[in-house]
Amino acid sequence: MLIHLSSWPEIDAQIASGRPLSKTVVVPIGSNEQHGPTGLLGTDWLCPEIIAHEAERSDAALMVAPTFNIGMAQHHLAFAGTISLRPSTFMAAITDWVSSLSRHGFERIYFLNGHGGNVATIEATFSEIYAEWSFVEDEPPFVLKLKNWWDLPGVQGLCNSIFPTGHGMHATPSEIAVTQAAYPDRIKTADYSPQIAPSGPIRDALDYRARFPDGRIGSDPAQANPEKGRRIIDLAVPALLSDVAAFAAEARPGDAS
Amino acid sequence: MLIHLSSWPEIDAQIASGRPLSKTVVVPIGSNEQHGPTGLLGTDWLCPEIIAHEAERSDAALMVAPTFNIGMAQHHLAFAGTISLRPSTFMAAITDWVSSLSRHGFERIYFLNGHGGNVATIEATFSEIYAEWSFVEDEPPFVLKLKNWWDLPGVQGLCNSIFPTGHGMHATPSEIAVTQAAYPDRIKTADYSPQIAPSGPIRDALDYRARFPDGRIGSDPAQANPEKGRRIIDLAVPALLSDVAAFAAEARPGDAS
Amino acid sequence: MLIHLSSWPEIDAQIASGRPLSKTVVVPIGSNEQHGPTGLLGTDWLCPEIIAHEAERSDAALMVAPTFNIGMAQHHLAFAGTISLRPSTFMAAITDWVSSLSRHGFERIYFLNGHGGNVATIEATFSEIYAEWSFVEDEPPFVLKLKNWWDLPGVQGLCNSIFPTGHGMHATPSEIAVTQAAYPDRIKTADYSPQIAPSGPIRDALDYRARFPDGRIGSDPAQANPEKGRRIIDLAVPALLSDVAAFAAEARPGDAS
Amino acid sequence: MLIHLSSWPEIDAQIASGRPLSKTVVVPIGSNEQHGPTGLLGTDWLCPEIIAHEAERSDAALMVAPTFNIGMAQHHLAFAGTISLRPSTFMAAITDWVSSLSRHGFERIYFLNGHGGNVATIEATFSEIYAEWSFVEDEPPFVLKLKNWWDLPGVQGLCNSIFPTGHGMHATPSEIAVTQAAYPDRIKTADYSPQIAPSGPIRDALDYRARFPDGRIGSDPAQANPEKGRRIIDLAVPALLSDVAAFAAEARPGDAS
Amino acid sequence: MLIHLSSWPEIDAQIASGRPLSKTVVVPIGSNEQHGPTGLLGTDWLCPEIIAHEAERSDAALMVAPTFNIGMAQHHLAFAGTISLRPSTFMAAITDWVSSLSRHGFERIYFLNGHGGNVATIEATFSEIYAEWSFVEDEPPFVLKLKNWWDLPGVQGLCNSIFPTGHGMHATPSEIAVTQAAYPDRIKTADYSPQIAPSGPIRDALDYRARFPDGRIGSDPAQANPEKGRRIIDLAVPALLSDVAAFAAEARPGDAS
Amino acid sequence: MLIHLSSWPEIDAQIASGRPLSKTVVVPIGSNEQHGPTGLLGTDWLCPEIIAHEAERSDAALMVAPTFNIGMAQHHLAFAGTISLRPSTFMAAITDWVSSLSRHGFERIYFLNGHGGNVATIEATFSEIYAEWSFVEDEPPFVLKLKNWWDLPGVQGLCNSIFPTGHGMHATPSEIAVTQAAYPDRIKTADYSPQIAPSGPIRDALDYRARFPDGRIGSDPAQANPEKGRRIIDLAVPALLSDVAAFAAEARPGDAS
Repeated sequence: MLIHLSSWPEIDAQIASGRPLSKTVVVPIGSNEQHGPTGLLGTDWLCPEIIAHEAERSDAALMVAPTFNIGMAQHHLAFAGTISLRPSTFMAAITDWVSSLSRHGFERIYFLNGHGGNVATIEATFSEIYAEWSFVEDEPPFVLKLKNWWDLPGVQGLCNSIFPTGHGMHATPSEIAVTQAAYPDRIKTADYSPQIAPSGPIRDALDYRARFPDGRIGSDPAQANPEKGRRIIDLAVPALLSDVAAFAAEARPGDAS
Repeated sequence: MLIHLSSWPEIDAQIASGRPLSKTVVVPIGSNEQHGPTGLLGTDWLCPEIIAHEAERSDAALMVAPTFNIGMAQHHLAFAGTISLRPSTFMAAITDWVSSLSRHGFERIYFLNGHGGNVATIEATFSEIYAEWSFVEDEPPFVLKLKNWWDLPGVQGLCNSIFPTGHGMHATPSEIAVTQAAYPDRIKTADYSPQIAPSGPIRDALDYRARFPDGRIGSDPAQANPEKGRRIIDLAVPALLSDVAAFAAEARPGDAS
Repeated sequence: MLIHLSSWPEIDAQIASGRPLSKTVVVPIGSNEQHGPTGLLGTDWLCPEIIAHEAERSDAALMVAPTFNIGMAQHHLAFAGTISLRPSTFMAAITDWVSSLSRHGFERIYFLNGHGGNVATIEATFSEIYAEWSFVEDEPPFVLKLKNWWDLPGVQGLCNSIFPTGHGMHATPSEIAVTQAAYPDRIKTADYSPQIAPSGPIRDALDYRARFPDGRIGSDPAQANPEKGRRIIDLAVPALLSDVAAFAAEARPGDAS
Repeated sequence: MLIHLSSWPEIDAQIASGRPLSKTVVVPIGSNEQHGPTGLLGTDWLCPEIIAHEAERSDAALMVAPTFNIGMAQHHLAFAGTISLRPSTFMAAITDWVSSLSRHGFERIYFLNGHGGNVATIEATFSEIYAEWSFVEDEPPFVLKLKNWWDLPGVQGLCNSIFPTGHGMHATPSEIAVTQAAYPDRIKTADYSPQIAPSGPIRDALDYRARFPDGRIGSDPAQANPEKGRRIIDLAVPALLSDVAAFAAEARPGDAS
Repeated sequence: MLIHLSSWPEIDAQIASGRPLSKTVVVPIGSNEQHGPTGLLGTDWLCPEIIAHEAERSDAALMVAPTFNIGMAQHHLAFAGTISLRPSTFMAAITDWVSSLSRHGFERIYFLNGHGGNVATIEATFSEIYAEWSFVEDEPPFVLKLKNWWDLPGVQGLCNSIFPTGHGMHATPSEIAVTQAAYPDRIKTADYSPQIAPSGPIRDALDYRARFPDGRIGSDPAQANPEKGRRIIDLAVPALLSDVAAFAAEARPGDAS
Repeated sequence: MLIHLSSWPEIDAQIASGRPLSKTVVVPIGSNEQHGPTGLLGTDWLCPEIIAHEAERSDAALMVAPTFNIGMAQHHLAFAGTISLRPSTFMAAITDWVSSLSRHGFERIYFLNGHGGNVATIEATFSEIYAEWSFVEDEPPFVLKLKNWWDLPGVQGLCNSIFPTGHGMHATPSEIAVTQAAYPDRIKTADYSPQIAPSGPIRDALDYRARFPDGRIGSDPAQANPEKGRRIIDLAVPALLSDVAAFAAEARPGDAS
């Protein structure tokens, strides 16, 4: 079920149903940030949304929250169209999402992430949330999990096999291919120079733009095409479903085995 | 242009183009919250998104940011699927959106809002943002505007004429009709009892649920249908375009006339 | 009872008395900000204080807190004497007032407001306060209410009838007349040019000063005099008493009727 | 000049006048908190207000801001009528007052304090404010000063001579006498038991109430009367005027002598 | 026991032991800031650490936390090597230390402070922590105490007798002597000019450096030597042990006598 | 130079010296948290301190700040002696350290970290700090770097070769060996059961304690001894010196090559 296209009684009934996935929810989370000369600004939130929505279509019991579309992208701010939250804002917002979803009885909240730059802040947020319970010797009524879509079983391996060179770290052909498969009428082209972008450390926005003039890091997005994106999606969707199912079924420590 | 489906060079070129709308951006903003027995949880962010995206289709010069889909909905939290930010979180997030968009050269930021419960916090945020400049005798490089989609010229009048009774304040037939027009395969039905929901003050979530047991306030959503929604959209779209154009063209005080 | 001129045993006894108003408290709240060439900087906190204190004199059972004299006035900061809280500070302070008053057993807290610019932030604060309870499925031990003094039954109508033109939005003859009635030795005069001030949107402080050079918006304060102020006060005082009484007596949802 | 009973052009003219006190402002600051069986809840903000307003009557060049009437009184919260800000809120509010007053050209801000429990937080706030400048090697455009009214030259000595025993630390006969002189129709009486209240450390509210059952610490307020209060005021007023004058005239380090 | 050189089972056993000091912990707290031409930057955190660690060596039942080595030193930031927290950060950090220590069963937390500039913020923090309990009519499970090492019984008197002139307020010969006794290989010398440093108010960092060009306030550190430091330590150590013992044994109000 | 054992003129002279390391500072940073039945609570801050201090002894030009000894350890709070900052507090504190060190002219700040649980929050903090500059198109005057001591070139490899099994993730024999080498009189022993601790996810404190009853994760600390620790230190020290030197010498993008 896509929460935003459901009514509250539908969600309520599903949570109360006692079915295996009934108390687990997937939150696609990403970022709206430059993805090189041809990548869509929405790439990082579109990818997890594409995968999660397609998974929901194949198993309607999968509960999918609206997409958390703005993340931590301060280093991309020298490129037009990037929207970033400060980490502290991002933390507050994730906290409120968790409070809201937990309020309804969701006990397992699974963030399907599409942006590497989000990872540190999401993990820090989990600690911030758990700390509230840890300081007072109490147990939170929910478990949180972060999974990057490219870390779903098999996905990184497939991407590497499709793009043995020029995969890189930002504006990768994998993610661009995924968006091309879903938005074929939005495919853009450019002459890349150099063909494979440079690499280096990530710091503030001006430093980033000086190091990576067209926004890419280490990647050659020219290799992307919709068919490759489709292959990635087709692998990621069942991988997500089984990863979520395992998470939903995971025993808590102390539960009788 | 939809920012999330564009590349950064496309956005950059548009901002630099000097065209009338080049430095103005529309942010659809709403809430994910219960909308009665049949309304979609996403209603309040879908409505401004529907109108803004359709406006962009009729005038590609209109710049539309990704949809800000979670707002202030604490009073709806007793109904499953609602996700709310605390006002303080909401304020921080809007502030970061404004900082990001302003960073790229947008001088006019237009929030097209779909949730009445957002209004106070958005206005407070504008004051929080402006205060930073007001305390130090400096001028912000941007102007902010909030407009509810039903306050676009003519829209409220049309809604009232279509639904002379039972329009109400929450889960209104207008907003539900708009989503029905856009998502006809997601139309849900229910027996409403009473046909027109009660009215009353809005406070915390338990108080809300006690007063408004199925979530509606004063409304009879059974009157909604896709055709009525289409009529509303067809009026709202040109109204938005001309309201944004007027905002973009507005003189600053002190400008020569 | 004026809390600040009472001892704690007096307040304690009143709260414990079981009388109709015993668990309700009125907080006059306003702003210290420019009010045009002749208005007192304190106008917006003096008006609710004047009305609430006079109401207390006519019914000693009315509990009145000290006046919350600084509000959200960032847009007036280009005029000397204005003191403003940022909305975030204002929210924190109101929250602490509510926590304090609730701690003593007040179950109904009624903010009698004198500044339109406070409304959004006060409402956002109510939501921030309620959210803490809404996220955890608990019921707050208090109910909050905001009422502008000019929205007390009958008052706006009287003001319009006394000042059919040139009432305007800021430094109105109504509010200035109320302060003249209470502080007749502080009446100031000036030549107004134009007689009726311009109108327009409210943004940051420099924008405000450029649009409204002497601080007024749409008003002609020259029409104010103490007698008119007295008429307004004489209507507002009983209106306040009956509005507070109704609030104190209001049933909670779920209470047996 | 009392700012709240002046118009902005009057304040503006005074700041621009170049007179000795023109860029200095006095802020009476206190707390609304229990003061034993007979003391007014407003005692701690009334005392500095009484002294500052009387000083302004004797020298109209003295600029006096509205009274900052709620301070840090968490330890008194077990007694009805006490209103407290958290220290963090108090800090934010003082910061905004300073930003506002500095915006208008006040270069010296003098807090005349009436509550010992405020001292730590006010001093911490000064450091918080200064830190913003200290981190960036810049000089603030203002100087801040905190003075308790009983620390004005000669005042503590006079209080000790009038009340050689039973002065104590909270609900002292000095402060109660000052309010009696100003509000003679609000004098309350009680049998004190013990005549001189106990002493001890100050911690949280329940601990406080257990140690100091009627709210007093070490004091015998029965000794207060309006005449004694008048003597204290008569000494404090000129002491304030000369202390403020010295502060206004103080050379900055590096100024030529 | 030094917590950082113990294992968790050792700490756990001690807390559970029921011995007189078992639920009390000493936190050495100071600042890393300039101490004139010859003083160590660490002086203010080294002094309480030296005294607390030596006390622990003479009574292993004394529980000593790691040293809180960075405090509030904004006024020293114009001198290299100074590290300061903003008061608001300092408050958050102390709060987390208290939450952590309380979580383990420590009921009495004793801050042995080495920096006068920390006092206001530490006291404000105690109020911030207590306020959380005071607002809700609950009792915190811990008691907090702040003691400057020079305020331990007898210490200030000894310092004054050793250094009858030129003790001053910052970079005092006492504190420098204490560090010389503990770090004799780090003794530095300089020609002081003037021999006794000037005095004056403390404000922001640039003001401080202009008033106190070499960093000292009112002191002549040339009088320090390791032997004098040893005498101070030898007095402070038993004074600390007995002060902590008294704190640990102190009855709560309401306990049967 | 150890900053805390230096005077400010010494630090000032070094920063101004123009030597290769003069504007670079190393901050040992860790955590005070349980390390299994035998590990010291201070392990995670002692290890980077041990390595950094020994590096400073071999090259006095290395500037070393005081040790940041409390980090993010919420998951360890169910074990006595653990002290944790919330991530938000940790972020504020790191920010203030950076502001302070940058104020003195340090342009490169190198955090030598001893706790894996700190990584996410430190990285989020770097983004928070950089964001302030990225939003306004400005360049920060400093570069930040995080390095875990076990990630220094060669160290992880050495640890794996010394402890081919039972190295694990928490309370590893490597880190315990390092502390044993430095604090040989604080070596503790225990019977470990199981010999190699279990592994699993890290969540809140109660969950952690249920999964990892004695605190270890995947490790067998019985293999540690001081000689092994010495070998690790002897490799880490020159690795640190050369890593810092490379960082200090790194060209900025845009610098002429």
